[in-house]
Amino acid sequence: MEKESVKSGDIVEIKTDKEMYEGILLESYDNSIYLIKQESGYNIGVEKAKVKSVKVMGKAKPSDFPEVDIKPKKGVPGISIISTGGTIASRVDYKTGGVKWLMKPEQVFALSPGLLDIIKINKIESPFTIASENMSAENWIDIAKTAAKLLNEKENAGIIITHGTDTLHYTAAALSFMLKNLNKPVILTYAQRSTDRGSTDTVLNLKCSAHMALSNIAEVMLVGHASINDNFCYALKGTKVRKMHTSRRDTFRPINDLPVAKIHEEGKIEIMSKEYNTRSEKKVVADTEFEEKIALVKYYPGANFNIIDFYREKGYRGIIIEATGLGHVGTEEAKYNWIESIVRAVKSGMTICFAPQTFYGKLDPYVYTPGRKLMDAGVIFLNDILPETAYVKLGWVLGHEKNTAKIKELMLENIAGEFNKSISEKSFLF
Amino acid sequence: MEKESVKSGDIVEIKTDKEMYEGILLESYDNSIYLIKQESGYNIGVEKAKVKSVKVMGKAKPSDFPEVDIKPKKGVPGISIISTGGTIASRVDYKTGGVKWLMKPEQVFALSPGLLDIIKINKIESPFTIASENMSAENWIDIAKTAAKLLNEKENAGIIITHGTDTLHYTAAALSFMLKNLNKPVILTYAQRSTDRGSTDTVLNLKCSAHMALSNIAEVMLVGHASINDNFCYALKGTKVRKMHTSRRDTFRPINDLPVAKIHEEGKIEIMSKEYNTRSEKKVVADTEFEEKIALVKYYPGANFNIIDFYREKGYRGIIIEATGLGHVGTEEAKYNWIESIVRAVKSGMTICFAPQTFYGKLDPYVYTPGRKLMDAGVIFLNDILPETAYVKLGWVLGHEKNTAKIKELMLENIAGEFNKSISEKSFLF
Repeated sequence: MEKESVKSGDIVEIKTDKEMYEGILLESYDNSIYLIKQESGYNIGVEKAKVKSVKVMGKAKPSDFPEVDIKPKKGVPGISIISTGGTIASRVDYKTGGVKWLMKPEQVFALSPGLLDIIKINKIESPFTIASENMSAENWIDIAKTAAKLLNEKENAGIIITHGTDTLHYTAAALSFMLKNLNKPVILTYAQRSTDRGSTDTVLNLKCSAHMALSNIAEVMLVGHASINDNFCYALKGTKVRKMHTSRRDTFRPINDLPVAKIHEEGKIEIMSKEYNTRSEKKVVADTEFEEKIALVKYYPGANFNIIDFYREKGYRGIIIEATGLGHVGTEEAKYNWIESIVRAVKSGMTICFAPQTFYGKLDPYVYTPGRKLMDAGVIFLNDILPETAYVKLGWVLGHEKNTAKIKELMLENIAGEFNKSISEKSFLF
Repeated sequence: MEKESVKSGDIVEIKTDKEMYEGILLESYDNSIYLIKQESGYNIGVEKAKVKSVKVMGKAKPSDFPEVDIKPKKGVPGISIISTGGTIASRVDYKTGGVKWLMKPEQVFALSPGLLDIIKINKIESPFTIASENMSAENWIDIAKTAAKLLNEKENAGIIITHGTDTLHYTAAALSFMLKNLNKPVILTYAQRSTDRGSTDTVLNLKCSAHMALSNIAEVMLVGHASINDNFCYALKGTKVRKMHTSRRDTFRPINDLPVAKIHEEGKIEIMSKEYNTRSEKKVVADTEFEEKIALVKYYPGANFNIIDFYREKGYRGIIIEATGLGHVGTEEAKYNWIESIVRAVKSGMTICFAPQTFYGKLDPYVYTPGRKLMDAGVIFLNDILPETAYVKLGWVLGHEKNTAKIKELMLENIAGEFNKSISEKSFLF
């Protein structure tokens, strides 16, 4: 009876025939075990069948989570961290069952045993603490400026940015365009399960991020679980990555690309990509001019072109359209022929680009007649770009340029690895 | 020299040391071979290295493609076909290099050797011939009415619908909701390469569709290439399928679901799903009431809620929002807080539903506080539904119901397999 009355968040003492365990009881997906967060930070599962007694010693409070210990270990390289919020910076609220912010960003690292054997944390900067669905360009700019500053400090071998998952791939794309003369690794990482939970992905993701932040690859990369197993991560190019699952820990997948590298927990890095920049002595510049009057619109059967006119009338400067197939929207045969609205938009000075709504594969306006008509109307076909990356790129390009011809040239230039000319067959649904 | 001067579309006579081949020269991805469509309908590749002479006998015209031979084979079961257009109903225009409609829908089947050994074609109905990006609800209704009529004819063991790929998954979802009391298999199929090309997927897709149309499974299913190999197909549930690649022949993938069955060219069907309806004597009803004043909107960082107000002011009755993560949009912390616009929309009688923008996984409004606020605002969270299926379902439900409570009940009811309560881990990126 006593066994059943304990609740997540209780501080418990559990005895089996041979052992005794103390710690905070966590929620467990496996009903046959008690999952306990021990004082060491490590979690342990104890089979209920073997348990002789469970004693409740108190209730966990945030302060019961070990305080951060940023004592540097000798000979370990230093990095700095930008903490922005998200699940990785949060904990389960044992009262409501929901998720709350941790008291301090430092606690994330205190809850990640083993991390400080790999790196020394020089600094933790937290320009804001928000859930990533609430971010917009001003947040990307804040992060880019903070990142550039830290990257130009000699003591940092690289930086890690912790971030919510919902829009992490947009931020990854934004930093890819905004950080010029990149000299060191910029690693974005996350958690799908809050850091205090037994099933959290924080620890592996942070360790792999630390290894990658010390690598020779000076690129913006997203690092996280490669599979449902808790054993290795992928580093994914910031412009070719998308959140593909609402809850899996291996939610981030490369699109039209393979991972840059596979990273093992103990530090082995297997490079998978041929193209990347390496460390340098360059001075990083945060090139953050951004046009916020842009939109991302998905085409679908029965979609009315009045949405294009709406944005034109509101003074928007550009739209990314998620087109079907090789780059299509409704034309002459359709109930709504989008060509006239597109022509009106282009004539008014707007930039209209297509990106593939299928995500995988690339556009090709030359296969069917309407593709050529859309090109004539002024549509820019963005090959194999991700619509999300295209949206970010459009804002960045329009922030820098007013000339129509130059805008088109920039949109079609491979600025931050957003296009892949030799897509491997293996990358489909990787 | 003579060898190099021949062009795709030429009728040629090619001689090697041992053999002579006659037929229409097709474009070939492999530059080392001549690809010829023979009079039998089969294509053959001849190694250029072995060719002694190439003689041009004339130019191919559409009429040079073999005329359809719908002579029934004895003892073969009958089906009927609905031809709607798309690449499967098209051929390469050897003049422009683009793609044109075939002269008659019948030619698709004439160009598919072996198909008539499996089935007898009772009837080919073609309510319209358009590219699928130009379709809208009125086309779905046309197809549903034609399908219901054919399904209620005793002579048809099932039906096959040929269709463009761009929006095929929307039509598959529409028919899943519109065909009530389904008594026989309804198979949707397609081609990613036009039917006269050597690399066409038409032949395997039609053969597998024919086998599936004769099966015992009375469901709306999309049948097509399972892999890049030309050896077997999958049958995919009409409400759980999405076009995931711009050009691959295995572009259609199950989302949050496994295939219903694996179909081998020679006719072996391996069932992979436990839940399906079987053949019956029921009379099919085309239940096609549909509300076209609906929209599909994707949320992204910096997205302005004025899009919700725009559709409300235009008198739209409902919107599907592709939300991030477990079901999020900008709230208090964001530049644009969508909650007030959503409240205005719901108060005006609109139906606002969320579907996952990640496609894989399911929504969960209970993990984070904003999820609960959005539920309070009246948002309906549609679990693991595909946004495209959600859009179609919303139009269908609003076509049938005016009462808010009843609309919500229907949106959350599993009407046509659009929700999957036990998603297999294997289905992620299947």
